[in-house]
Amino acid sequence: MPLPGLDLARNVLRLGLAAGLRVAAAESCTGGLIAAALTETPGSSAVFERGFVTYSNEAKTELLGVPAATLAAHGAVSEQTARAMAEGALAHSRADAAVAVTGIAGPDGGSAEKPVGLVHFAAARRDRTTRHAVHTFPGNREEVRAAAAETALTLLCGMLEEK
Amino acid sequence: MPLPGLDLARNVLRLGLAAGLRVAAAESCTGGLIAAALTETPGSSAVFERGFVTYSNEAKTELLGVPAATLAAHGAVSEQTARAMAEGALAHSRADAAVAVTGIAGPDGGSAEKPVGLVHFAAARRDRTTRHAVHTFPGNREEVRAAAAETALTLLCGMLEEK
Repeated sequence: MPLPGLDLARNVLRLGLAAGLRVAAAESCTGGLIAAALTETPGSSAVFERGFVTYSNEAKTELLGVPAATLAAHGAVSEQTARAMAEGALAHSRADAAVAVTGIAGPDGGSAEKPVGLVHFAAARRDRTTRHAVHTFPGNREEVRAAAAETALTLLCGMLEEK
Repeated sequence: MPLPGLDLARNVLRLGLAAGLRVAAAESCTGGLIAAALTETPGSSAVFERGFVTYSNEAKTELLGVPAATLAAHGAVSEQTARAMAEGALAHSRADAAVAVTGIAGPDGGSAEKPVGLVHFAAARRDRTTRHAVHTFPGNREEVRAAAAETALTLLCGMLEEK
């Protein structure tokens, strides 16, 4: 699989440099792909501050401060958890903007209510309103992860472009 | 670039499942590639517990507990920092084994003493002796990062195989 989102990652770095903003990523189903794309470009350390790969629920709570009650009430794959992850990434980093991804990459783990391919996103920025998005991506695990990484980077660009 | 180390990642998952051990990754220059490889395989959540992409020095200190004095005395790219990152990843996770990578992927940031391609590794496991390795990889940024991810996954396999 090629590393997805490299063009979008370069855009994040360009926008971050122009605005003097640093970014963080909080990843569940993308598992590091967003951070890997952001750090592939030389000079990325000026914009990418840190990344959290919070695969387990305990990691989401311990590293990002996602309330255990939120995970219990809404599940790891939910708007509420995505928002808490993005805002937690800001609270637990030096970054000015953060993106979070939590979804079901498959092939297992899907249900009628939450099918394979369902991914929730949130993008947060200090002193701004957090944005949420949800998609259901077609394809296999690799394709869902790649589409999720690209969507997250696009959301992060939008957050950095906000006036 | 294809995602490097997928075969090695599958080996980590196989060994972790067989031994009932979970793993964590603490990445600087690989920037999420190790976590991305480990999470590409279905079912990886049974073995991969969390990942830290500690790109800034502050992230190394705040997320992994790398002493600021260690960073100041030896630099971020050093045996001492690699060891502190791996042991810090164990201390700040539920994982049983952890691998850490810190290096100079280039094209900038090299010096006579620490050239581009220099990468320090450490692998830690609860109640075992932490191992260190150092390599100087040829090639461009992409090639150095890929080689570093593959070397880290190999070290992690060795740590899981330890009797």
